[in-house]
Amino acid sequence: MPNCGKIPTPTLERLATYLSALTNLANTNVETVSSAQLEEHTGVNAAQFRKDLSYFGEFGRPGVGYNVRSLHARIKAILKLDRPQPVLLVGAGNLGRALVGYPALKAENFQIVAVFDNNPTKIGSELMHVTIDHIDSVAERNRSLGARIGIIAVPAYAAQQVAEQLVEAGVLTILNFAPVVLKVPPHVTVRNVDFVQELAVLSFYLPDE
Amino acid sequence: MPNCGKIPTPTLERLATYLSALTNLANTNVETVSSAQLEEHTGVNAAQFRKDLSYFGEFGRPGVGYNVRSLHARIKAILKLDRPQPVLLVGAGNLGRALVGYPALKAENFQIVAVFDNNPTKIGSELMHVTIDHIDSVAERNRSLGARIGIIAVPAYAAQQVAEQLVEAGVLTILNFAPVVLKVPPHVTVRNVDFVQELAVLSFYLPDE
Repeated sequence: MPNCGKIPTPTLERLATYLSALTNLANTNVETVSSAQLEEHTGVNAAQFRKDLSYFGEFGRPGVGYNVRSLHARIKAILKLDRPQPVLLVGAGNLGRALVGYPALKAENFQIVAVFDNNPTKIGSELMHVTIDHIDSVAERNRSLGARIGIIAVPAYAAQQVAEQLVEAGVLTILNFAPVVLKVPPHVTVRNVDFVQELAVLSFYLPDE
Repeated sequence: MPNCGKIPTPTLERLATYLSALTNLANTNVETVSSAQLEEHTGVNAAQFRKDLSYFGEFGRPGVGYNVRSLHARIKAILKLDRPQPVLLVGAGNLGRALVGYPALKAENFQIVAVFDNNPTKIGSELMHVTIDHIDSVAERNRSLGARIGIIAVPAYAAQQVAEQLVEAGVLTILNFAPVVLKVPPHVTVRNVDFVQELAVLSFYLPDE
């Protein structure tokens, strides 16, 4: 793949959007799709779509459009979702429950293989069929699980310590829902999802009364 | 406020990040903060911070730093969070429950004032002390509530119809958790949070085995 080391993050985000649209098209047995049709499904304009794909070589044929299954398979491979991706979840609260039960994760090959918490009343019980383990066992548990993606769904005050435990357990990428800036070693990639931040931006766009 | 019509979205996102850090500092009775110290708490470098603030006029004094409470109050006002912001939530599932129970929302003045679903077994029961109403009543209910922010936490196949019902009910901004591109009138602003997309980007960054 050309240029693979320097793909802009927005391109990666859009690739995931294309993948989701292609998954839906493949499920409804659509065989080919034009970039204009894909724009309908993704909201991303056709020129941007072609530019994003250009980072990864040749796709489709001019005037013919794209074969849905082959484009789907190639984007899955680029995002390393052509193989199961085991995920560790820390935080067995409401958000953790929502994530474990989220059907689209499994559909794209993400598998939450273990759930951790530090609340003694939760340890040993199940969250949507996954047994909850104590966070202090994460390094030991992950020796056999081999997960490299972790999700932090704990309160802000606990998030930094959890991040350190995940890194020690061999996790290389973290999806962080706690509203706090995590300090991690340079080899670890973090993405933050902050519900308050999302709503605050929307609030700004409201007209004055 | 100068330039208020053309604030870049990343600036708004960072404003929300500064707000969250300042809320924490104010809660621990810190009185002044330098841009370098704030960088510690937000991960945003000091030059970017000053540039972001410059859209909104004069803040702080060179060499003295920023008064935490006054900066906090000004950013709250910019983001229109100096007043309660009522929010309609659609989708009384696990994610909805996580959102209603999320303490940081209330701390920043967001109040989920009504919850809607279309599942007859849920209507009339409570989600964290908020009674669940039928989605078809959203326009009528919002006549008295006056909320202009809506959250969509329903499955993808139901999201477009819910968006239309929210818009008809007077909602102007939507936070959408469904993995689908919503078609809304131009006066409505949508932000999407897609858990699969977030994980897919992280998956890309994993080294090859």
